Amino acid sequence: MPNQGCRKRLSVSNKTVVQTQYVTFSDDITLKSGARLGPVTVAYETYGQLNTEKSNAILILHAFTGDAHAAFYHEGAKDPGWWDAMIGPGKAFDTNKYFFICPNVLGSCKGTTGPMSVDPKTAKPYGLTFPVITIEDMVDVQKHLLDHLGIKKLLSCAGGSMGGMQAMTWALRYPEMLHSSIVIAACHRHTAQQIAFHEVGRQAVMADPDWKGGNYYGTTVPASGLSLARMIGHITYMSWMSMEQKFGRKLRDKDKLGYDLSKDFEVQSYLEYRGKSFVDRFDANSYLYLTKAMDYFDLAEGRKLGEVFQDVKADLLVISFTSDWLYPSSQSQEMVRALKANDVDVSYVEIKSDYGHDAFLVEFEDQTRVISNYLAKVQKERVLGRNL
Amino acid sequence: MPNQGCRKRLSVSNKTVVQTQYVTFSDDITLKSGARLGPVTVAYETYGQLNTEKSNAILILHAFTGDAHAAFYHEGAKDPGWWDAMIGPGKAFDTNKYFFICPNVLGSCKGTTGPMSVDPKTAKPYGLTFPVITIEDMVDVQKHLLDHLGIKKLLSCAGGSMGGMQAMTWALRYPEMLHSSIVIAACHRHTAQQIAFHEVGRQAVMADPDWKGGNYYGTTVPASGLSLARMIGHITYMSWMSMEQKFGRKLRDKDKLGYDLSKDFEVQSYLEYRGKSFVDRFDANSYLYLTKAMDYFDLAEGRKLGEVFQDVKADLLVISFTSDWLYPSSQSQEMVRALKANDVDVSYVEIKSDYGHDAFLVEFEDQTRVISNYLAKVQKERVLGRNL
Repeated sequence: MPNQGCRKRLSVSNKTVVQTQYVTFSDDITLKSGARLGPVTVAYETYGQLNTEKSNAILILHAFTGDAHAAFYHEGAKDPGWWDAMIGPGKAFDTNKYFFICPNVLGSCKGTTGPMSVDPKTAKPYGLTFPVITIEDMVDVQKHLLDHLGIKKLLSCAGGSMGGMQAMTWALRYPEMLHSSIVIAACHRHTAQQIAFHEVGRQAVMADPDWKGGNYYGTTVPASGLSLARMIGHITYMSWMSMEQKFGRKLRDKDKLGYDLSKDFEVQSYLEYRGKSFVDRFDANSYLYLTKAMDYFDLAEGRKLGEVFQDVKADLLVISFTSDWLYPSSQSQEMVRALKANDVDVSYVEIKSDYGHDAFLVEFEDQTRVISNYLAKVQKERVLGRNL
Repeated sequence: MPNQGCRKRLSVSNKTVVQTQYVTFSDDITLKSGARLGPVTVAYETYGQLNTEKSNAILILHAFTGDAHAAFYHEGAKDPGWWDAMIGPGKAFDTNKYFFICPNVLGSCKGTTGPMSVDPKTAKPYGLTFPVITIEDMVDVQKHLLDHLGIKKLLSCAGGSMGGMQAMTWALRYPEMLHSSIVIAACHRHTAQQIAFHEVGRQAVMADPDWKGGNYYGTTVPASGLSLARMIGHITYMSWMSMEQKFGRKLRDKDKLGYDLSKDFEVQSYLEYRGKSFVDRFDANSYLYLTKAMDYFDLAEGRKLGEVFQDVKADLLVISFTSDWLYPSSQSQEMVRALKANDVDVSYVEIKSDYGHDAFLVEFEDQTRVISNYLAKVQKERVLGRNL
């Protein structure tokens, strides 16, 4: 009765405590732009046990503002990692079966080298002297991490949103290094509208006088600009419907309209809250660099998607959500068609959800069913099958 | 051969010149909030001839940042009014047949009293001492204008977006005063997402240090905040598809990516251009007041839409556009269902378009066919029919 076992494990009151680990690569890495960057530190966490054949490793790839802490608890923490509902014993990403590595991406501010890191050449934070990075550069740094861990081939890599862009890039950039890739709520290139929403976010940050050309470290951070950028982003992460269900025209601590310019509606103060709390956990320059990396994301780069996908050797699982209007299903479907045309073994699931782009962080039940079955199939067909 | 006649008229090289007129109502008006405001000046234009029975008057209601100059040319101007393609001899709103009045709305900055107008009590611009206004208040001021012009009953009123909200409000607030109303790309209430987009626009304006609590008149205007607000708005006015068709990933004066934080893509500089040029033509405080008026827009206000529509006496034409995601067709359809349930004579047309919310300012051919036929029908059934 595996289900009962699973339930039991989920109900234990002892919290499993995990720690973020760090590794520093002292040699410079060459970025897609041609610029060189080094040393590069990578923050990462691991969950589960790597088997002796090192054939059960899965790379977990986080989204825009995520971090290495995907699951379980940090010492003394109230809340678990950002995808804890998906990673753990008996969960979609089953730590009883697989070994997971979740690295913080290059350019972020959560332990991996980024614009707020200290440049050893100047002993000051990089700020805008940090080179512009791409999704490919993030993946290259992850490759260094796998080399460091002695993992030659991944059972899978998986991520939503920007994590999905990395998962797709892995399949193209290191085709021999993975059996499968799980691409959730993502795309194969950023569209004009996606670039436009990022651009207004960046303009909000840079218009804040406290941004000071990116040299705000050790002084007041550009809180109002970064908060506004996050508010804009947050609207795009929710759907029309989820906003309507959650807020509609509900008033905020009021029984009638104020007839002034203050906040009347709950949705206004919710956005403000989300904006302000974001400032406490994220760096404004990382906001600029990571949005830019996504805007640069374009697998085909002027070629035909079909041509680009010729080199894909992994099996793919593509998941999209019906109400995601930021990375709409149509983009996933375009990708799936081009993969199928290249005889890539691709499964596509569109999950019905009202949660918009955020669905990949909310719709656990459907994702769990799809992903756990998929991983079992990949292991059976591509790992165990080959050993038979 | 009416079509040929029409073409001839459209091709004449002599531009018809029109002037904005002004009328000031010296008595205070009472606003929905209970506040009083006066004197109120209204800027308006008229086109065509009012017939002796005064039965051919149509009120043209502009959108958010529009003005009284809907058609023809101002003296020496290169460009015509904002809906010139729709208003004129032989056009959708045919100036050979009907008499049009287009007033600038209360709270705007285009001649009608608004926050940048001088408060006679202080001899200074109102700024934030201007009272918060509603769509209902705009309509009430328009009613004063019609009284002033001696028009007791409108053949129709018509507008897109915020103009459509006014057109809907006319049908409820002065049911005896109009035969029909044409509601384009609008809604019966602002949703959480619509409020949210307005909120981030307002926050962008108010975060600009040059806004100075609204007291910037005579000093530097909050250009960067207002520009950013417009950029955000502009994304919502276009569709995913129209942005993709117009810009896609086209680079701006570059043959490759810059790998820096500057603008690489055309869509970035286009948005910046739209933002900056908006600052030259619109007042930041009006931006706050008019977005607030729209956010307050809710015809039902806690009651059932069906109840509210019981008093409608006008015929209605509701038009929406397939790719309009800011005021989606579903909102128009909800309105149409409630109107039909109350036996209101309502026609609904969903026009196929890739232009998003902007479609009402772009899709002239389909709108012309629908509106010109509709107005002929209303005149025949409700005006001429009654005289027989």
